[in-house]
Amino acid sequence: MKNNVVQALKDVREKSPLVHQITNYVTVNDCANITLAIGASPVMADDINEVEDMVSIASALVINIGTLNSNTVKSMIAAGKKANELGVPVVLDPVGVGATPFRNKVGAELIKEVKFSVIRGNLSEIKSLYGADVKTKGVDSLEESSLNEVGLAKEIAQKWGAVIAITGAKDIITDGERVAVVENGHKIMSKVTGTGCMCTALTGAFAGVCEDAFTAALAGVVSMGIAGEKANERLEKNEGTGRLRQNIIDEIYNLSPEVILERGKVYEK
Amino acid sequence: MKNNVVQALKDVREKSPLVHQITNYVTVNDCANITLAIGASPVMADDINEVEDMVSIASALVINIGTLNSNTVKSMIAAGKKANELGVPVVLDPVGVGATPFRNKVGAELIKEVKFSVIRGNLSEIKSLYGADVKTKGVDSLEESSLNEVGLAKEIAQKWGAVIAITGAKDIITDGERVAVVENGHKIMSKVTGTGCMCTALTGAFAGVCEDAFTAALAGVVSMGIAGEKANERLEKNEGTGRLRQNIIDEIYNLSPEVILERGKVYEK
Amino acid sequence: MKNNVVQALKDVREKSPLVHQITNYVTVNDCANITLAIGASPVMADDINEVEDMVSIASALVINIGTLNSNTVKSMIAAGKKANELGVPVVLDPVGVGATPFRNKVGAELIKEVKFSVIRGNLSEIKSLYGADVKTKGVDSLEESSLNEVGLAKEIAQKWGAVIAITGAKDIITDGERVAVVENGHKIMSKVTGTGCMCTALTGAFAGVCEDAFTAALAGVVSMGIAGEKANERLEKNEGTGRLRQNIIDEIYNLSPEVILERGKVYEK
Repeated sequence: MKNNVVQALKDVREKSPLVHQITNYVTVNDCANITLAIGASPVMADDINEVEDMVSIASALVINIGTLNSNTVKSMIAAGKKANELGVPVVLDPVGVGATPFRNKVGAELIKEVKFSVIRGNLSEIKSLYGADVKTKGVDSLEESSLNEVGLAKEIAQKWGAVIAITGAKDIITDGERVAVVENGHKIMSKVTGTGCMCTALTGAFAGVCEDAFTAALAGVVSMGIAGEKANERLEKNEGTGRLRQNIIDEIYNLSPEVILERGKVYEK
Repeated sequence: MKNNVVQALKDVREKSPLVHQITNYVTVNDCANITLAIGASPVMADDINEVEDMVSIASALVINIGTLNSNTVKSMIAAGKKANELGVPVVLDPVGVGATPFRNKVGAELIKEVKFSVIRGNLSEIKSLYGADVKTKGVDSLEESSLNEVGLAKEIAQKWGAVIAITGAKDIITDGERVAVVENGHKIMSKVTGTGCMCTALTGAFAGVCEDAFTAALAGVVSMGIAGEKANERLEKNEGTGRLRQNIIDEIYNLSPEVILERGKVYEK
Repeated sequence: MKNNVVQALKDVREKSPLVHQITNYVTVNDCANITLAIGASPVMADDINEVEDMVSIASALVINIGTLNSNTVKSMIAAGKKANELGVPVVLDPVGVGATPFRNKVGAELIKEVKFSVIRGNLSEIKSLYGADVKTKGVDSLEESSLNEVGLAKEIAQKWGAVIAITGAKDIITDGERVAVVENGHKIMSKVTGTGCMCTALTGAFAGVCEDAFTAALAGVVSMGIAGEKANERLEKNEGTGRLRQNIIDEIYNLSPEVILERGKVYEK
């Protein structure tokens, strides 16, 4: 599987896919910069008057509901439908689903209206999106994903025909048949806002060049995990999460096939 | 007073309160990252369809009017009223009040509709909010706060039943009876956008764990001041405000009781 | 010409002009920080209820259409007309014009309704704005500007009475008569989102103090180019575009007349 990730990295650097992102204003700058760092090209348009045109020239669409509002939800659905029509892969980050009825409603609406190639979230978000009864504390995960959740992830993947990526202490990626577990990353990453959003942005970049959405999701998760742990190792005395955020972008910019092969902790399940 | 700040720091790290912030899109990422760095958990929802639900699961609400618009003002008031109903403390950052009639109107409306635990701003913002006739140059302060302003701050605090924190060369914090003066910080901080907003975000984090709003405001102001001066000391040759911004987050992440006790310049008045 | 840039830098540091920016939420924080770093004062208000009042106290207005929406377009036009009425210089960054019909329409509307002092974009944006038939790939430039484009730039400048700045491998600045070519900068800058937006923000800061819009545009372009190449030189092993972004702000903060005279590659054409 790691060889597929390596190939995906080479492809994204060679083809520089345009990744249309309708996302939140908290982490949008980091999402744009990490998309550039991996070798793709971001565009963040969200007005209803242009999202269909923008997605038509894009290689992938990322929908992130971190800071929802009624206008952008309309844009998300319009862009998602157009992407489906054109065969442009769509990646969903259901940030904070479970936290409020509005987020649950929007999540359900997106799942109903748009066919997603990949859905990436933490365990409580994915469970909430699937209708499971789980309490979410804001946009942070209350529970860590565990291998026991593999069954759930497979079930969701089969039902929705989407690759499900549940990220946490261990990450689970499945298309309903294949299952990969990734053990990269470091717990300090949860102390920087947007590491989840950035992981989704990377997945979008890979989805823009990979035929196989499972590989795209795996590449996004492995890249982010490796970047996070290397970024943490580079912290010097007196440095903290401000520096970490910058290091993560640096590590994605410098990510190489060799680093993926050496440090990727990817296991087939 | 410094011991109370130390206790507040311990509490925020232990309890990791959820801090709901309705804020501006200029400095929102820094506010989220500094909230995480101090040990709390940020959520930035601002849509009218979810702010009441979100504030219901939060330990504090921060309202920052840096980039006002008609929609978010409605959300601010709805969230603020709900917070008041539930006893969730509300912190206001009246960014740029005094600069335009619209900001003055919104400021007055917020004061009328919502009961605030803490209001933090520079002298011209606080004066303008109070109806004093003062000209503001955009969102920057024309005048530095001085100890002469203590009387004004006490008067406002008593009238509104809120802790007033006026930040500047010297910072004044008062609940109408107790008065603290803080002499931490460095003038270079004004060359990074959002140091005021971040101070307010920190105050929100502390308000999420402190019974006493005066201690929460003091803890926010002292933490930000110490972080700013240490961040400046860490600048190396050729570095400037780009690096300073990152260092500030690092310093908050690494802030310890020992550092507060050693470096806090807090004086009772 | 370099002496004029040096004088502009001295003036911006001395007068600290207020620069009102109606801009996109992707790079707004960087635009605010670079405006502060050069010595000016940013304010990012975009609500229709206050933009006319805000621009009335500003020394320059920057309009950047990176993340357009119907509301902010109204604000852009209202602020632009007010600025024209008051003689406040207006700088346009036509981000992504050419990518969608909506952007083309808004671009045309802005040109019709507002008189701009400076328009800064890449070649495809400027061509699209001028109605030339060119395909744009999202917000990135497909074609590099070349000296062959000088004729086009002069033609546009004369027609619209605006200084045209086309940035790329080589930058062209012209007011329809005078032409400057700038060869500063480094290609890695295109891997950080917002280097174009920041260049426009700097131009706005200079426009707030320069009588001559040609000098303001030249100063913005030269400053950004020098900052980018110095920022790149300061990158250490394992660092990348995360660090570069920070270094760029640092370099603007530390920019001096000496550095401009030593490193500015400005040629009259």
